[in-house]
Amino acid sequence: MEQLSSNRCFEGEQLRLRHRAETLDCEMTVSVFLPPLSGQEKAPVVYWLSGLTCTDENFMQKAGAQRIAAELGLILVAPDTSPRGDSVPDDPEGDYDLGLGAGFYLNASQSPWQHHYRMYDYIVDELPDLVNRHYPARPDAWAISGHSMGGHGALTIALSNTARFRSVSAFAPICSPTRCPWGVKAFENYLGKDRDAWRDHDASLLISRAPEHIPLLVDQGEADEFLEEQLLPHLLLEAAQDADFPITYHSRPGYDHSYFYIATFIAEHLRFHHRFLAD
Amino acid sequence: MEQLSSNRCFEGEQLRLRHRAETLDCEMTVSVFLPPLSGQEKAPVVYWLSGLTCTDENFMQKAGAQRIAAELGLILVAPDTSPRGDSVPDDPEGDYDLGLGAGFYLNASQSPWQHHYRMYDYIVDELPDLVNRHYPARPDAWAISGHSMGGHGALTIALSNTARFRSVSAFAPICSPTRCPWGVKAFENYLGKDRDAWRDHDASLLISRAPEHIPLLVDQGEADEFLEEQLLPHLLLEAAQDADFPITYHSRPGYDHSYFYIATFIAEHLRFHHRFLAD
Repeated sequence: MEQLSSNRCFEGEQLRLRHRAETLDCEMTVSVFLPPLSGQEKAPVVYWLSGLTCTDENFMQKAGAQRIAAELGLILVAPDTSPRGDSVPDDPEGDYDLGLGAGFYLNASQSPWQHHYRMYDYIVDELPDLVNRHYPARPDAWAISGHSMGGHGALTIALSNTARFRSVSAFAPICSPTRCPWGVKAFENYLGKDRDAWRDHDASLLISRAPEHIPLLVDQGEADEFLEEQLLPHLLLEAAQDADFPITYHSRPGYDHSYFYIATFIAEHLRFHHRFLAD
Repeated sequence: MEQLSSNRCFEGEQLRLRHRAETLDCEMTVSVFLPPLSGQEKAPVVYWLSGLTCTDENFMQKAGAQRIAAELGLILVAPDTSPRGDSVPDDPEGDYDLGLGAGFYLNASQSPWQHHYRMYDYIVDELPDLVNRHYPARPDAWAISGHSMGGHGALTIALSNTARFRSVSAFAPICSPTRCPWGVKAFENYLGKDRDAWRDHDASLLISRAPEHIPLLVDQGEADEFLEEQLLPHLLLEAAQDADFPITYHSRPGYDHSYFYIATFIAEHLRFHHRFLAD
């Protein structure tokens, strides 16, 4: 693993790394924040999944999360949003919502995507292994969060792996990708026309099948320009109610889809996770 | 004035604006943060001057300053770092340290720069007029801060206008541009070969001539890659001592020149300014 940069930040260390990802068959960059730790101390880990067009850098540069992670003693890990590199296929139309920067945190089954686009395996298995090997991470204390496409990723990955994540939160997640344009386009390309295969990657459909309940927080700005066409939080809330799965839902008047919104409430999310990670 | 964007942030409002700057004879963008204010309330203003290659956006996206500005009730104003536009001359070599993104907060006297490159007049006169006309700003309560080239700008502008700024702070400022490569290159181009004209734009030379003492805070990372060749804080500290001008100087072990460093200490700086702006 190659360390691309290291910057001191809130008495901790902001790292950017490059490594060969076996699951994705390409080089990947990852941003990691290490809080100030003493001696042999190990820290819980919060994984952050970013939205369409983002890389591993957006969250670490714009959310202001390091301040509170340093205070609470949390490691933050932000991966990229898709495989990258010259050999990795992209949307032939060049749109932002498919291909590079738009991996949707699933394992593709369709050509030409199925070889590289295996973000689910990367996030669930390869990345945590890497973090556990190289950093003072507690392997038993993980949470996951994300924004928009990354909120979808956090919810679907957590609901399918409730034994591995103690808690999950999401900012403005794509709550039901099988029923919105971004999701339908991505799933048709990555998973094919058979909609049965889509059900494992839709939080609103997964929530009734979660092996157990874990603390789940959803945050949504009321002035979000994607709220009604793409995000559809009411579908998740209805499904959660039907499944008796408790959700904490914050609706934020006036807030939009931007990192200015995330920065405002990231401290609340990290404190939420910390309650379940601290023991 | 055209409003390019508005994002709710920490219950305040993050704005990006475009306006015709008469002093610079071009269109300029400016980022402004308005804290939550009630009714007819007016707020003090902290001007932020950014460093080489930055625009008005870097500080607002990366420093995390809105949280503390909202808490303290401070308006933040971040201008661009040079005139912009097709008619504005740039460094013929295309280097980052002259021309676009590198205005050095002075009025150029030399061709081809002297028509557009009048950032001193823009920051001292035109921009505050604009802010006072359009926003609930207290015209008698201003502070100024900045980073690197913008730290140089904040210090030199404040030391020449001690009646207008109640306090000044700087992160990793270029403390004596007449004696470092960035400054010498800029001043030779903008001000010409006659070094007498340079003295008005060097904080270490200005400090003995300041009309009065105002609270002055300088912050410097000890792992800053530009410390020894370009920033030279010891020259400012020596000049301040010779002039009996009190400086608060924070030397930060391990911190570099990046926004991760600024984000770590911006709250301290805004609290410093707030002490003198609050009455």
